[in-house]
Amino acid sequence: MSCCAVGMESRKVERLAKYERRTGWLLSAAAVLFLMVYAWPILDPGLPGGVIRACSIASAAIWIGFGADYLVRLILAPNKTRFVRDHLTDLLVLALPLLRPLRALRAATALARLGRASMTLRGQTIAYVVGGVALLGFVAAVAVLDAERGSEDANIKTFGDAAWWAATTITTVGYGDRFPTTPEGKWVGAGLMVGGIALAGTITAALASWFVEHIGSVEQAGAEAQDQIATLTAEVRALRSQLAAEQKLR
Amino acid sequence: MSCCAVGMESRKVERLAKYERRTGWLLSAAAVLFLMVYAWPILDPGLPGGVIRACSIASAAIWIGFGADYLVRLILAPNKTRFVRDHLTDLLVLALPLLRPLRALRAATALARLGRASMTLRGQTIAYVVGGVALLGFVAAVAVLDAERGSEDANIKTFGDAAWWAATTITTVGYGDRFPTTPEGKWVGAGLMVGGIALAGTITAALASWFVEHIGSVEQAGAEAQDQIATLTAEVRALRSQLAAEQKLR
Amino acid sequence: MSCCAVGMESRKVERLAKYERRTGWLLSAAAVLFLMVYAWPILDPGLPGGVIRACSIASAAIWIGFGADYLVRLILAPNKTRFVRDHLTDLLVLALPLLRPLRALRAATALARLGRASMTLRGQTIAYVVGGVALLGFVAAVAVLDAERGSEDANIKTFGDAAWWAATTITTVGYGDRFPTTPEGKWVGAGLMVGGIALAGTITAALASWFVEHIGSVEQAGAEAQDQIATLTAEVRALRSQLAAEQKLR
Amino acid sequence: MSCCAVGMESRKVERLAKYERRTGWLLSAAAVLFLMVYAWPILDPGLPGGVIRACSIASAAIWIGFGADYLVRLILAPNKTRFVRDHLTDLLVLALPLLRPLRALRAATALARLGRASMTLRGQTIAYVVGGVALLGFVAAVAVLDAERGSEDANIKTFGDAAWWAATTITTVGYGDRFPTTPEGKWVGAGLMVGGIALAGTITAALASWFVEHIGSVEQAGAEAQDQIATLTAEVRALRSQLAAEQKLR
Repeated sequence: MSCCAVGMESRKVERLAKYERRTGWLLSAAAVLFLMVYAWPILDPGLPGGVIRACSIASAAIWIGFGADYLVRLILAPNKTRFVRDHLTDLLVLALPLLRPLRALRAATALARLGRASMTLRGQTIAYVVGGVALLGFVAAVAVLDAERGSEDANIKTFGDAAWWAATTITTVGYGDRFPTTPEGKWVGAGLMVGGIALAGTITAALASWFVEHIGSVEQAGAEAQDQIATLTAEVRALRSQLAAEQKLR
Repeated sequence: MSCCAVGMESRKVERLAKYERRTGWLLSAAAVLFLMVYAWPILDPGLPGGVIRACSIASAAIWIGFGADYLVRLILAPNKTRFVRDHLTDLLVLALPLLRPLRALRAATALARLGRASMTLRGQTIAYVVGGVALLGFVAAVAVLDAERGSEDANIKTFGDAAWWAATTITTVGYGDRFPTTPEGKWVGAGLMVGGIALAGTITAALASWFVEHIGSVEQAGAEAQDQIATLTAEVRALRSQLAAEQKLR
Repeated sequence: MSCCAVGMESRKVERLAKYERRTGWLLSAAAVLFLMVYAWPILDPGLPGGVIRACSIASAAIWIGFGADYLVRLILAPNKTRFVRDHLTDLLVLALPLLRPLRALRAATALARLGRASMTLRGQTIAYVVGGVALLGFVAAVAVLDAERGSEDANIKTFGDAAWWAATTITTVGYGDRFPTTPEGKWVGAGLMVGGIALAGTITAALASWFVEHIGSVEQAGAEAQDQIATLTAEVRALRSQLAAEQKLR
Repeated sequence: MSCCAVGMESRKVERLAKYERRTGWLLSAAAVLFLMVYAWPILDPGLPGGVIRACSIASAAIWIGFGADYLVRLILAPNKTRFVRDHLTDLLVLALPLLRPLRALRAATALARLGRASMTLRGQTIAYVVGGVALLGFVAAVAVLDAERGSEDANIKTFGDAAWWAATTITTVGYGDRFPTTPEGKWVGAGLMVGGIALAGTITAALASWFVEHIGSVEQAGAEAQDQIATLTAEVRALRSQLAAEQKLR
């Protein structure tokens, strides 16, 4: 590659990063708005037709906005093939109507943005996971309610049922008093179960790393080694001053 | 901030710490008492009216005591806003009647106090979690029994049912033979599920840190490095005595 | 403590260790035998009365044997109070008829004995846990069958039911198609759930420690430090030989 | 052992490794084919008799192929007893018709082969586990459908039911709306539960090792020790040049 091509590519990477920095807040806000216009008509079925129509228009507008954002980033990306491969989930969430609820999960990035400044990496990861899982639980409850309410022999008929089902699923308790019966509901459930494992796994892992750090012999061994090295350094310094003294004597 | 202000603030921090040290045992005892007067009328519905009335008076008195303690600590705190933010759960547990059972969880601090002296940090954490979770399970069983017993189509009617439900929930087994059906009971259940994940996570994490410490290459690598440093120190000492001998010779 | 007392105590500790070394195999064999005479009459209810009677006699004999072993160890122990405190579970398993099935768990020590020679500490721990949990699952299935079979509205009536229930419980899946309904069965179930969490936790922890050891920067950092120390040692050795050469020259 | 025997053995080990390298792809392909001819007749019961017969012939042929492969490797192995002991699962999967579905799991090695080149060890392990567990879930769903469809009072009658059951089992949620009722189905379920624990455990463990590596004091302590050693080395170098200067002066 010639020097000019390298320069152009690095300029492109810069432009993409600048674009993402600028539109980040906007997209997070759009995701939060999407969550609202997606959940509202499902949670309150008695809404007047006009409001429902407004919600679907807003939802479609946000979808177009996300699509435009994807295209702009694709154009700014120096390596198109790699961009498509690295952002495959973005493309799937845009293209498949079944994955529509997942668009709301982008709202989690807003959460992450708020937390980033003040916390340690572990605190941040926990906050991110807990916040993300709470969001996932809410979106899953809304999506399952949407899928199940129409079915005759469903057992999830209200948002209370759906929220309780989401809680029992995400924690892998699974009483079985409420469970999805339609194919769409079952897909939502499968996604939520994986989220539940991720929740439990991250909490456990964070705890484990805390233990490893604060307790016991690893840190102690390190401290002992540092003490030994300090002793050794003092020894060498003494040697050097001894030698210097000798040189002076002569 | 002037020097005097700093002095005042540090004196305030000291006073708060002294107050908390002094009242710690008292508050733990009050929490244990609260647990008793909270659980007793629920567990034994055949209690004479006078005893039930005495229990609710004691419960209210402890509530006032906790409230007074919160106010005193707030007054002693140098930074009011920060104190409110850092002790938000204390405030919520005081203000929301639904969170009333959580007041009993303060009894866990008594447990922690007993264990603190004699154990390693990991043993202490395990004892704290196991003790805390046992307490959580008991409180949840009592609270769910309180919530469910009034309901017609509930399936938790005795303390035995409630305790079995708590065990299946906290371990995330969730057979579904017993489960809460009222909104209050479901909130209790949701809290218990999170406790169950914390239980499993902490036990796993403690085991993992034990493995990391006692097995394998990390510790070994540290030991090898220490051996190497010891060899090196011996080398430097030999060098120094060689030099000293030379100086003597002259 | 005088020198004689110390000598007596250390001789006692030695005698206790010698006794435990000698009787270890015998007690493991007794535990395996106990497992058989405990499980057989439950698994095959059509046994002739004579065999059942022989089984209960053998069971009682083993119980007396375990009791005698506990007494001998108590007598040999230098510090009685500490021995009772450290072996509280032994005492409970001997004293409480409800904990009778747990006597069979001592058979796990035989398993551990077999594995000890050839494996790494982690492999050994996994083998011990998996073996112990398999044993726990079997004992729990037998115990729950014993508890449930007599009950009218129980849903665990055959060993197949009980084994399936044990599998769904120990893995915390908990479908709820089979579950204990009697108080004794529920106690067995609660014990098994805790075992299930221990199983999952130990497997996860072993995996985590494997990851920590084989992957990544911790080991690498150690290796780098060792390289640095080696360089430093070479430097010091060069210095020393330089000094020696100087001394020769003179 | 004489020098010739050692030579022969090492040549044998080499020949076995060469054979395994060459036939690896072929066996993976055979496993994928087996998965297809095993699953197809179960998933589509309306298949014409000819196709079903072709599938069972292909299945038998692959079985013979796997058997031949086992024999060849046994012949090439320098130590027969050790080979049989180390490849006991291979033998069991070949010999027991009940374990027939497990033959398809060898297809996971193909997956591993694809991933090996490009990823870190942790990424590789996760990909391997997730891929392997997805395969396990699919095979278990097919096997349970095969076992349950014939039974009158089964509740798993379609592949949709079976897949949903597999998802709730592998994540240990276990609603209990679908569960195996036949002994064969229950064996499949037990295997899947263990797979579910392995899934959750590996994800947790990978997360934990990531935390341990990227966060906190272990790495920092190592870095500090390295800084100390660097300081010390500089010190010793200064000493040596000081000595050299002295020698020159004379």
